[in-house]
Amino acid sequence: MTTNVNTAYSDLVEKLEEISRLGGVMSTLHWDQEVIMPSGAAESRAKQISALAGVIHERSTDPQLGECLDALKKEDPSTFNKFEACNIREAQREYDKETKVPKKLVQEMAELGSRGHFVWIKAREENKFSDFAPTLKRFIEMKKEWAAYVFPDLTPYDANIDNYERGTTMAEIAPIFERLKSELIPLIQSVKEAKHHPDTSFLEGTFPVDKQEALGKQISTDMGFSFDQGRMDVSVHPFCGGGHPTDVRITTRYRDSDFIESLYAVIHETGHGLYEQGRMKEGRDLPVSEALTMGIHESQSLFWERMIAQNKAFCAHYMETFQTTFPNNMQGVSVSALYEAINNCKPSFIRVEADELTYPLHVILRFEIEKGLFDGSVSVDGLPELWNDKMVTYLGVRPPTDTLGVLQDVHWSGGAFGYFPSYTLGAMYACQFYKTMLGELPDTEKYIEEGKFAPIKTWLNEKIHSQGSLYSPQELVQKVTGEPLNPDHFINYLKTKYRAIYQIN
Amino acid sequence: MTTNVNTAYSDLVEKLEEISRLGGVMSTLHWDQEVIMPSGAAESRAKQISALAGVIHERSTDPQLGECLDALKKEDPSTFNKFEACNIREAQREYDKETKVPKKLVQEMAELGSRGHFVWIKAREENKFSDFAPTLKRFIEMKKEWAAYVFPDLTPYDANIDNYERGTTMAEIAPIFERLKSELIPLIQSVKEAKHHPDTSFLEGTFPVDKQEALGKQISTDMGFSFDQGRMDVSVHPFCGGGHPTDVRITTRYRDSDFIESLYAVIHETGHGLYEQGRMKEGRDLPVSEALTMGIHESQSLFWERMIAQNKAFCAHYMETFQTTFPNNMQGVSVSALYEAINNCKPSFIRVEADELTYPLHVILRFEIEKGLFDGSVSVDGLPELWNDKMVTYLGVRPPTDTLGVLQDVHWSGGAFGYFPSYTLGAMYACQFYKTMLGELPDTEKYIEEGKFAPIKTWLNEKIHSQGSLYSPQELVQKVTGEPLNPDHFINYLKTKYRAIYQIN
Repeated sequence: MTTNVNTAYSDLVEKLEEISRLGGVMSTLHWDQEVIMPSGAAESRAKQISALAGVIHERSTDPQLGECLDALKKEDPSTFNKFEACNIREAQREYDKETKVPKKLVQEMAELGSRGHFVWIKAREENKFSDFAPTLKRFIEMKKEWAAYVFPDLTPYDANIDNYERGTTMAEIAPIFERLKSELIPLIQSVKEAKHHPDTSFLEGTFPVDKQEALGKQISTDMGFSFDQGRMDVSVHPFCGGGHPTDVRITTRYRDSDFIESLYAVIHETGHGLYEQGRMKEGRDLPVSEALTMGIHESQSLFWERMIAQNKAFCAHYMETFQTTFPNNMQGVSVSALYEAINNCKPSFIRVEADELTYPLHVILRFEIEKGLFDGSVSVDGLPELWNDKMVTYLGVRPPTDTLGVLQDVHWSGGAFGYFPSYTLGAMYACQFYKTMLGELPDTEKYIEEGKFAPIKTWLNEKIHSQGSLYSPQELVQKVTGEPLNPDHFINYLKTKYRAIYQIN
Repeated sequence: MTTNVNTAYSDLVEKLEEISRLGGVMSTLHWDQEVIMPSGAAESRAKQISALAGVIHERSTDPQLGECLDALKKEDPSTFNKFEACNIREAQREYDKETKVPKKLVQEMAELGSRGHFVWIKAREENKFSDFAPTLKRFIEMKKEWAAYVFPDLTPYDANIDNYERGTTMAEIAPIFERLKSELIPLIQSVKEAKHHPDTSFLEGTFPVDKQEALGKQISTDMGFSFDQGRMDVSVHPFCGGGHPTDVRITTRYRDSDFIESLYAVIHETGHGLYEQGRMKEGRDLPVSEALTMGIHESQSLFWERMIAQNKAFCAHYMETFQTTFPNNMQGVSVSALYEAINNCKPSFIRVEADELTYPLHVILRFEIEKGLFDGSVSVDGLPELWNDKMVTYLGVRPPTDTLGVLQDVHWSGGAFGYFPSYTLGAMYACQFYKTMLGELPDTEKYIEEGKFAPIKTWLNEKIHSQGSLYSPQELVQKVTGEPLNPDHFINYLKTKYRAIYQIN
């Protein structure tokens, strides 16, 4: 690099690091709000968050940041190594996202996002979709406008998907989702009709919260989560937050009538947490080290939750621990019985409560609806009926109310369109990564049975966590697994697993 | 106000509110760091705090803020009501403090503050004052320079006092401290020689931490601390923090061999917390609502710790609770015995462990030394000997090491000169306020005995907490008590109390 380029790049780094550090402060505030903050502080905290958001916005749209990027853009790309090139590329992308949208639209979206949330809560409570419909209509209009400013080369829905899942488009997702549909709908039907169903009765009972907490911490530690660089607490909805790879904070919630829900939330969030703790050691305040996309992040939580912890080998390893921890409930339960019980499949109305097998259809339904809303083939007013009809076709159940149907998710109330596909992309990535791991570490299931998770974590650290944002999801999957995203792995996995559990020929 | 003045004032308010809100974020980060943060996050957190501090400094020195103040300064002071006038006055004071000092000196002080802290820790550990002396010398030089920039009309030491205790000078403090000395030294001597000494043996034993915590929360609640707008947690050193009057966070620490230490820390910090929670309802993000000075803040914590909780009436009210909570230790102990035990007086080397009666002499010693360091009559190199000689004269004990002497306090390692007097000013204010309260609420001790703290809290809320920064400490004391700070109240209180406890004629 010449001196000028050097200066422009180091100026860029300085500005990006400041933005990242202020972002870390913001994350800590959000964690505090969900976990620790006294209820009476809601209003003052909102003002503090708004003040900090204002500063971060100011820094993110700083014309001097734009000048740095302009100067760097003039250079021959080969001037930069891949680490530097990634920082420049990601910074440009964020800068464009922040600056290309007129202030008026940004403000209107922020305002509707805040107002829309309360409109949605009330509409859901009162089961009145028509009260929420105007918000939804306006958000779609605005998000189309937004798309034209930010990603003018993409269709409006693709632009919204790209916002969460960089480089991924409808053209890639649609055929994959069609395949999933054609395979999973009949599989779910067979499961429903199967004569053998898992016994889940021993998962009911009373499970003291302090024992659940100790168990969760133990398993999270076993998985390799570092409590020197993280915490585990309680919040209304489990999440993984914290302000830095050295300060990763997972949460769960407890009901004393169910230890599986809380424990698997811990495992899921630990999966996210290991991604964050496993980020590359260099450039931790720079975009290059950041987790790639929502879908890849979800692939890591689902990898641990499903590929590892819903595996029979995992049940085998922890059976004794469960029996010692909850002697009144788990004595005399076999490993197979536990394995079947935690993989119980049952079509239901609510996405967040859905099991591994039915979950994709909840996502596909939403993807198809969003696609239609953006290309005009679906009308907002007809949504409740369309939703319920699709639920019947895909899962064989019709929601009795819109509260249990089209009004169940928070996403649209904040204008988050294009977010849902990431959940199922994540599940497919997880499965494909696991298959590759089995090839490279043939003893994986033996390791799991022995509770030896270090080789698994190390593999994920190397292949995924430490790669940061260097590649697109497509490039990463190709690099790690030797092929593009291939739904066959996911389909075969589900077929084999659920045919065995439900004893379907 | 004219339109222009109106605009300048509302611009000022907007800027001050932003600074205050970002300051609230900073306080929350500091609390998090002391209470919650995983140890591995120290380095990343330091960088985040530095980024936020940079933003706050930028906002605090914003030339546009200076322009607002210049515009407002041109107006007839009668244009503004006392609320507005206070915001302008305090903003000007802070702006001057932030902008009048050359950047080079600010940076040098920040650097020495950071480095000096570690130099001090090491010197204290190794009992080597000579290693710390150069830092101390340099800090005094810099703080003299600093004083000339910020408060050119004050002597250097007065400027440093004014930084913590606005409007208070050596001329006010010195004669008061002389009086204290002349009265307390012989009183402490009589206490030492007294035949009767409190029995403290029942305060030794094992006090389960969970019971201590529940007791602390109960008494804090009884005092009127709102846990909807606050929290109580554990930290290495007890403090009162949090980011807003609606988010006040007190801490304590526990040793299972001593419940009094932890409980009285809770009471002390609750006193600070009630001040914060009791701030005026208007302008909570503006200087006008802020707690007045260090000394007045300390007057509130000491009011509750000493005037209320070390009162015999308090012992009478909680005796049964203590006995139920710690039946193995407290059964059969009389109220008088408890009262005497918690007021036990014993000259010792360490200020922070000192009792009510000997504490002022620790402060006076430091005040005299600081005064001498600033006027040149005391040399840094001669400090250890001077310190130890004064300890003998004032308290009759000679520290065997500098670790237990001149190196014990953190303050000087960060350049905090002029801070110590506030502790004893606070104790005297507390006593004078209490005397006034007894006049206005003659049933105060009856209330305490009944555990009815609401009238006491309400009185403090009205007279002190809700007054914010409207007045100087001198004006406030005059307004509340009808006279200036008068050490007689403190002296008479101590004489009466300790002569009775130690049965001195």
